[in-house]
Amino acid sequence: MEKILRIDVGAEGGPKVSEEPVGAYAGLGGRALTSAVVSREVPPLCHPLGAENKLVIAPGLLSGTAGAMSGRLSIGAKSPLTGGIKEANSGGQPAQVLARLGYAAVILEGKPATDDLYKVFINKDGVKITVDNSLRMLPNYDLIEMMKREYGEKFCAISIGPAGEMKMTAASIACTDMELRPTRHAARGGIGAVMGAKQVKVIVLDDSGLKMRAPKDPEKFKEANKTFVDGLRKHPVTGQGLPTYGTNVLTNILNEAGGYPTRNFSAGRFEGADKISGETQAETENSRGGPGSATHGCHRGCVIRCSGTYYDKDGKFLSKQPEYETTWSHGGHCGISDLDAIAKMDFLDDNYGLDTIEMGVTIGVAMEAGIIPFGDAQGAIRLIDEVGKGTPLGRILGSGAGTTGKVFGVERVPVVKNQALPAYDPRAVQGIGVTYATTPMGADHTAGYCIATNILKVGGDVDPLKPEGQVELSRNLQIATAAVDATGMCLFIAFAVLDQPETFQALIDMLNAFYGLSLTADDVVALGKSILKMERDFNAAAGFTKEHDRLPRFFTNSPVAPHNITFMVKDEELDTVFNW
Amino acid sequence: MEKILRIDVGAEGGPKVSEEPVGAYAGLGGRALTSAVVSREVPPLCHPLGAENKLVIAPGLLSGTAGAMSGRLSIGAKSPLTGGIKEANSGGQPAQVLARLGYAAVILEGKPATDDLYKVFINKDGVKITVDNSLRMLPNYDLIEMMKREYGEKFCAISIGPAGEMKMTAASIACTDMELRPTRHAARGGIGAVMGAKQVKVIVLDDSGLKMRAPKDPEKFKEANKTFVDGLRKHPVTGQGLPTYGTNVLTNILNEAGGYPTRNFSAGRFEGADKISGETQAETENSRGGPGSATHGCHRGCVIRCSGTYYDKDGKFLSKQPEYETTWSHGGHCGISDLDAIAKMDFLDDNYGLDTIEMGVTIGVAMEAGIIPFGDAQGAIRLIDEVGKGTPLGRILGSGAGTTGKVFGVERVPVVKNQALPAYDPRAVQGIGVTYATTPMGADHTAGYCIATNILKVGGDVDPLKPEGQVELSRNLQIATAAVDATGMCLFIAFAVLDQPETFQALIDMLNAFYGLSLTADDVVALGKSILKMERDFNAAAGFTKEHDRLPRFFTNSPVAPHNITFMVKDEELDTVFNW
Repeated sequence: MEKILRIDVGAEGGPKVSEEPVGAYAGLGGRALTSAVVSREVPPLCHPLGAENKLVIAPGLLSGTAGAMSGRLSIGAKSPLTGGIKEANSGGQPAQVLARLGYAAVILEGKPATDDLYKVFINKDGVKITVDNSLRMLPNYDLIEMMKREYGEKFCAISIGPAGEMKMTAASIACTDMELRPTRHAARGGIGAVMGAKQVKVIVLDDSGLKMRAPKDPEKFKEANKTFVDGLRKHPVTGQGLPTYGTNVLTNILNEAGGYPTRNFSAGRFEGADKISGETQAETENSRGGPGSATHGCHRGCVIRCSGTYYDKDGKFLSKQPEYETTWSHGGHCGISDLDAIAKMDFLDDNYGLDTIEMGVTIGVAMEAGIIPFGDAQGAIRLIDEVGKGTPLGRILGSGAGTTGKVFGVERVPVVKNQALPAYDPRAVQGIGVTYATTPMGADHTAGYCIATNILKVGGDVDPLKPEGQVELSRNLQIATAAVDATGMCLFIAFAVLDQPETFQALIDMLNAFYGLSLTADDVVALGKSILKMERDFNAAAGFTKEHDRLPRFFTNSPVAPHNITFMVKDEELDTVFNW
Repeated sequence: MEKILRIDVGAEGGPKVSEEPVGAYAGLGGRALTSAVVSREVPPLCHPLGAENKLVIAPGLLSGTAGAMSGRLSIGAKSPLTGGIKEANSGGQPAQVLARLGYAAVILEGKPATDDLYKVFINKDGVKITVDNSLRMLPNYDLIEMMKREYGEKFCAISIGPAGEMKMTAASIACTDMELRPTRHAARGGIGAVMGAKQVKVIVLDDSGLKMRAPKDPEKFKEANKTFVDGLRKHPVTGQGLPTYGTNVLTNILNEAGGYPTRNFSAGRFEGADKISGETQAETENSRGGPGSATHGCHRGCVIRCSGTYYDKDGKFLSKQPEYETTWSHGGHCGISDLDAIAKMDFLDDNYGLDTIEMGVTIGVAMEAGIIPFGDAQGAIRLIDEVGKGTPLGRILGSGAGTTGKVFGVERVPVVKNQALPAYDPRAVQGIGVTYATTPMGADHTAGYCIATNILKVGGDVDPLKPEGQVELSRNLQIATAAVDATGMCLFIAFAVLDQPETFQALIDMLNAFYGLSLTADDVVALGKSILKMERDFNAAAGFTKEHDRLPRFFTNSPVAPHNITFMVKDEELDTVFNW
């Protein structure tokens, strides 16, 4: 990871490849690196689909090592959805492979002069870019099948589906998983549209002949990793809850807490929750069987294994196990309680290359607009197909919840900075409302997951129904998350790291042993703050103010059942989140 | 004009009418009043289509008097298009009639609990509101025919078409003209959607039995008005150019100047300009004949008479004479040079209730996206019909150029604050670029019409191709315009007022004689500044920063023929426009 690969798709005569040492970006990985490059090299007022924007693909500091959980990939750009800086984060194999190929980042820049579509192949021998217009408008699954015919089974891929090619602001970037399926997505903020604007359909990565990245102090690294893994295994969330039920374990929990947004945030409890809960999902998967059905990791080196594989009743692959947020967005948010239909929608989103949160929330908004009724699972599937085909209606929906709300004149549109809210109502979980409102990313639960402390009582206990303590909670989690996102570590390590000091120390020890450093917990906090500061500065220069750090007005005006309260954290308090 | 009428459409049991003295708003009219009410009463972060927004309809200070040119109506709200404060301005009869009915403003507020559609009737005996769902989705012309059957021929009306009912952000509010046609529109910023959100389809006004408003000093008023009218008649623009050729006299002038945006701002000269110029239009209208064909005022009391009536070759009414900006947006901007097709589109926009500038620019952006080819007049007509029908494609287009650009992933989208740029390229007329970028209204030529001094050499001579002097020019014109917009005067008086000190003095004398005041030129300037300050403060509280006071990046990055220069006024200079 000592070099940066740049592909200038706007160079005269076709894409130009250049390699350079990491230079000024030395010591940065993942989100720290993507945000640094975007901050330093992308003009904040540029058009997100223009030549001036850059797509930055960066594995984390520990990616490609033997360290557990280190396979997360950060992809950054100026977001076409929010207009601000964006880092979207994906599992799958590419982070590990890119890191082993020696790249701290791959940067796509410029704008092609023609409408040709490019395929990029990278292995130990170098980079090969070819025009391949036969890939045009291929869905991700079909695309990967084509790539298998060309490259065998030993690669991994980063790709866009038709949504990215159509430059839709709900378009994701897919990463292949261990089964070479395009099921893992850097989904949020429409970064798939930026890859689409660069006209790069797929980046195929092959690390054959290359080895695991070697730590400076192998013994210490191994030891720290063991302590780290032990910590994950013994924590009830990472050792038990997540492997057994997947992230969807949260459905019953949030529904019970009255924070499960139902029918476009018109209620906090869904009568059909039990039918789509993690428990029901696990039972269904277990009873149907099939490879990787019950529990499964998204990348090699995962020891939590929160994922699974979802087969239909005849044993046919339907999709990877839909995440909690997907099950919610296509489920309760739309009044749908049909797990098979939700898995089908998960597959369609992955195949067309769409953010499942943005799409589900968008369909709920379309339901509120009367396009189809709440609860209409087959109608919802049809709508996603419209997006994949790029019909005018599909174009609207593929532009996300904010645009769909505007186009149909809907007032209740759950977005912050134009990005759809995830699966937690900020009236019943006030802490997450602070994160939604203030993170530079637009509404994003992963940016500071206050559910942990508000609901799961991890890392302390802050009453979810009261405004007190939420700002501090969100601030600390946003700082910690930014740092974790720089390491390439899966965010789920946070459950164990927050509760168990020795697991946190083990993570720091891994970094120190790998790089020969002597970082302390304070350094990790400083790193998190510096990332947030870069991101906030970029957004300010792009025109964002404190008025953009607000939830949509209905959260402060309209109480919701069952608690019948509003979001109560005051604007002035929100403005102190980044005062540290 | 001593009272304000409020209609709370959200009151329990149906709309509630209340009247109050002007109170704190005393001495304000037109834009000064609409912006004051919006500033004071509308939360800047509210949803534009929600209960908290208000639609404020205000005649000017001199409306309803015997003063010439005083028939402009201001309509204000938080704009669903820009998200900022909005005043849209219309000719037609309603300003005069509302003023004679004694209303400084009619304010629609709240949000109905049902989906009923309301009809409001106001005459000397009071206000009557009825549910009339038979009017649903009626285009403006049909609606007015319905109203004629009910109210005879002695009324005037303020109404929305299907676009307003569908809450499209390109929706206008129509005002009837002297022939009782809905041809005059408060068009910009999507204020028709706000009226749609209030579910008020039409406000019928009848001033039968009421008299012209009486000045405090009738003799002085009469004398000042005479001097004022003489001034308008002797100035070449208001006395000759505008009456003879209409506003479309500008086509050849701007094309010659290389500032006529062609095919979505990809060139500054249009090869078909001559076919759609004011000269050709006047010749066509004269040769076809028909009532009001050649020259015609939009409201009683107009002495400039820049309008006309456009008949087809068989003498059938096609539309009012399309304005320059309409002829451009549907013409050169789309590569269309067919005057009859443009008149047809003008009619469709008026009928569906759409801003002709926003719609034409949107169609050009759709052409750039490849929806139909540039130059396809029949295709463009079809697209407007899609908007009127509210098909998914129509919904996109009815959301304006900004949204259309986003939905179709177009990079060259000529909008500021999400509002479409009018008919002057800021690279060839640098002054207007300053106004587009900085006015609180979003791109709006009328907010500070630098064309006057850059191109027509009225009020001085500032080289249109150089950045020098443009900020001062735009600043002074923005201040003057805000003040004129408070009087109810047509903005075209500015040509004479800028060049002839005695005409400016006559305007002040009219105000003083009417109200028994002793205003000076300095007071007028102070009024203009105070209006702009209110508007800027509202926008700042709604989240607008200096980064929003910028042109789209292609104007500073891409030179355009024939001058092959970019917009050269620096960002730091733009930031000084409101330093006075």
